[in-house]
Amino acid sequence: MKKPNIVILGAGYGGLTTTVKLQKKLGANDAQITLVNKHDYHYEATWLHEVAAGTISPDHARFAIKDVVDLSKVNFVQDTVVSIQPDDNKVILEDGELEYDYLVVALGFEAATFGIPGLSENAFMINNINSSRLLREHIDYNFAMYNNEIEKKQERLNIVVGGGGFTGIEFLGELANRIPELCKEYDIDRDKVRIINVEGAPTILPGFDPQLVEYTLNSLEARGVEFKVGALLKGCTPEGIVIEKDGEQEEIPTFTTVWAAGVRANSLVEQSGLEHNRGKVEVKPDLRAPSHENVFVVGDCALIWNKETERPYPPTAQIAMQEAEVCAHNLATIVKGGDELESFEFNNMGTVASLGHNDAMGVVFGDKKIFGWSASIMKKVIDNRSLFKIGGIGLVLKKGKFNIF
Amino acid sequence: MKKPNIVILGAGYGGLTTTVKLQKKLGANDAQITLVNKHDYHYEATWLHEVAAGTISPDHARFAIKDVVDLSKVNFVQDTVVSIQPDDNKVILEDGELEYDYLVVALGFEAATFGIPGLSENAFMINNINSSRLLREHIDYNFAMYNNEIEKKQERLNIVVGGGGFTGIEFLGELANRIPELCKEYDIDRDKVRIINVEGAPTILPGFDPQLVEYTLNSLEARGVEFKVGALLKGCTPEGIVIEKDGEQEEIPTFTTVWAAGVRANSLVEQSGLEHNRGKVEVKPDLRAPSHENVFVVGDCALIWNKETERPYPPTAQIAMQEAEVCAHNLATIVKGGDELESFEFNNMGTVASLGHNDAMGVVFGDKKIFGWSASIMKKVIDNRSLFKIGGIGLVLKKGKFNIF
Repeated sequence: MKKPNIVILGAGYGGLTTTVKLQKKLGANDAQITLVNKHDYHYEATWLHEVAAGTISPDHARFAIKDVVDLSKVNFVQDTVVSIQPDDNKVILEDGELEYDYLVVALGFEAATFGIPGLSENAFMINNINSSRLLREHIDYNFAMYNNEIEKKQERLNIVVGGGGFTGIEFLGELANRIPELCKEYDIDRDKVRIINVEGAPTILPGFDPQLVEYTLNSLEARGVEFKVGALLKGCTPEGIVIEKDGEQEEIPTFTTVWAAGVRANSLVEQSGLEHNRGKVEVKPDLRAPSHENVFVVGDCALIWNKETERPYPPTAQIAMQEAEVCAHNLATIVKGGDELESFEFNNMGTVASLGHNDAMGVVFGDKKIFGWSASIMKKVIDNRSLFKIGGIGLVLKKGKFNIF
Repeated sequence: MKKPNIVILGAGYGGLTTTVKLQKKLGANDAQITLVNKHDYHYEATWLHEVAAGTISPDHARFAIKDVVDLSKVNFVQDTVVSIQPDDNKVILEDGELEYDYLVVALGFEAATFGIPGLSENAFMINNINSSRLLREHIDYNFAMYNNEIEKKQERLNIVVGGGGFTGIEFLGELANRIPELCKEYDIDRDKVRIINVEGAPTILPGFDPQLVEYTLNSLEARGVEFKVGALLKGCTPEGIVIEKDGEQEEIPTFTTVWAAGVRANSLVEQSGLEHNRGKVEVKPDLRAPSHENVFVVGDCALIWNKETERPYPPTAQIAMQEAEVCAHNLATIVKGGDELESFEFNNMGTVASLGHNDAMGVVFGDKKIFGWSASIMKKVIDNRSLFKIGGIGLVLKKGKFNIF
């Protein structure tokens, strides 16, 4: 009997967790597992705001796939997916194609710019290692240029962050710590630098507890962040942005606009023949695509409704990894001829947002709110936990975050 | 009796050494000493190639003037000199003017671009802290951009250094060490990066011993530096350069052209009423300007003939500091009413060029050639010696260079 071919697309939180769980559950004779990823490394997408602000090195936020995947069991293909053809059980790659018996789609997110003019061309994104370290270098470069010009350009020192959600706020927290260091390095008066957050909703962190929002505003404003809430971004050029608030437009000159306000599922999902709901596959409880029984979808490409709130679960690493465990279990069951598939149930471990190296806020243990230094310790525990689940204690020791006293 | 006013322009090697020697020789009642400098720090101009390559931090290559100048004896003015008016015993600053009884001109060098089209607009220079750290950031930025573009631009990875003299070679040595680190950080194949030196003379390091030149070529070529000697730079744009060799022109696409091939005295000297020879003041043996008895000139703005070679002494830190000691002695003598002025005699302590962190070459003790690791130790000794002469052992411990084993 021919071994079934399992192909996993993407080595983010969802795809990589599926792979490492599957390689434990299946023997080399049970199935041929192939993992496809654009890079030969996995990156911690939830740490990218630190790379982008320059508070950790890019290398700290990634590790080699071969360090956690057992290459005697898993065939790793470094390539870029071009299209998914579920009716033919086939995936087209830039440098070839793969046939599968079972497919796991874990291709993550991409930025959504909602048609705002100039945004996709001119704004910086915190999407991956390449774009994050480019943003860091861009900020450094503008600070370095500032004192080299006779006519000083304030655009070099204004940094606009579009979006006051989780990513935008975490980036602001890092930036607020990093800017004083940059000012010292490049002989720039801290008071000349503006860090401006633009959020369309009436408050930052929509959906968060008001006390957490208040704490965050205080922490960031104390470090010089300006907030413009209820303000819509109307356009972005290389030289600045236009925002609209209460019917009035304002121009803010800046060479650095960061877009952290919208994500959508990888657009390959929408382009594939899979049935989808605004770009995401509304999976069955066992995480299979309703239109194709042999296709699983996990992470940011999957749509699952939270019955309590009647809203979809947000795209988070925590959810992607929990989905991956269910996906791996169900795949292994099917391959071994079983039919007792698990249903995904979200087990909320809490949410903590970092606000810089020594500050954070969030909710843990169901409803316990935490703030400040102790929350920042908790945040590091959470970050290390995800390393542990994928690569064990060795990976935690190599890439983990620890407070040095 | 009114105390004489001594004004010293520039806190480089010449001006700062004059100041610290003078504050030891004169009491607070002997004279009013004023030091004028654009920044509130002195930088080690001979270390700037390391800042520009990113192998040391800008802060390591500078220290606060107040750390070495006794502010109870010396009045420090942070300002930029606009013009020197020796017929009126006056110096015009951006934010005021100063009258003097005695003046020390120690305004250092600026880049000379010999009218090569596009060079002053488009080439990077290793002239001061601001321009050096900008060059570092520019290189980093292009490496960061490389993998963010679908159409890869080789211009981002080609680095051209114009000039194979002392500064050009020292910069190449640092760059050759830094590039492999950058390649690792930004996931770029080292073989894709080109480091190209363009030198108009038939050999690099004209005037150096052939054995030292040979050693240098071997050391740098082994680390991937390409040399184009006997090649003239004909033009420079933001996208590349044109060189001419043996009557044939070649275009080299690059976003990074570094000009390290020519320096001249600060052009304020030429614009002043001081008698000069191609921009430099041909000082008397006691270092006074022939046209104005109360004006001393030291460092790169002074022209002194080496009688052995019948050529002017080159602009080096070593010579500037030796001149400063004579200048301080003569000024103190005059202020105290003496008339026994010293004549400047160059005491050659040798010349060592660094070729990266662990390599160097040069001549010491008159004619002893040194190479490699031991030469690099000697180079660090020389660097520390200049710190010691200006700021004592405290400054050496704070900013010195040490090999960590």
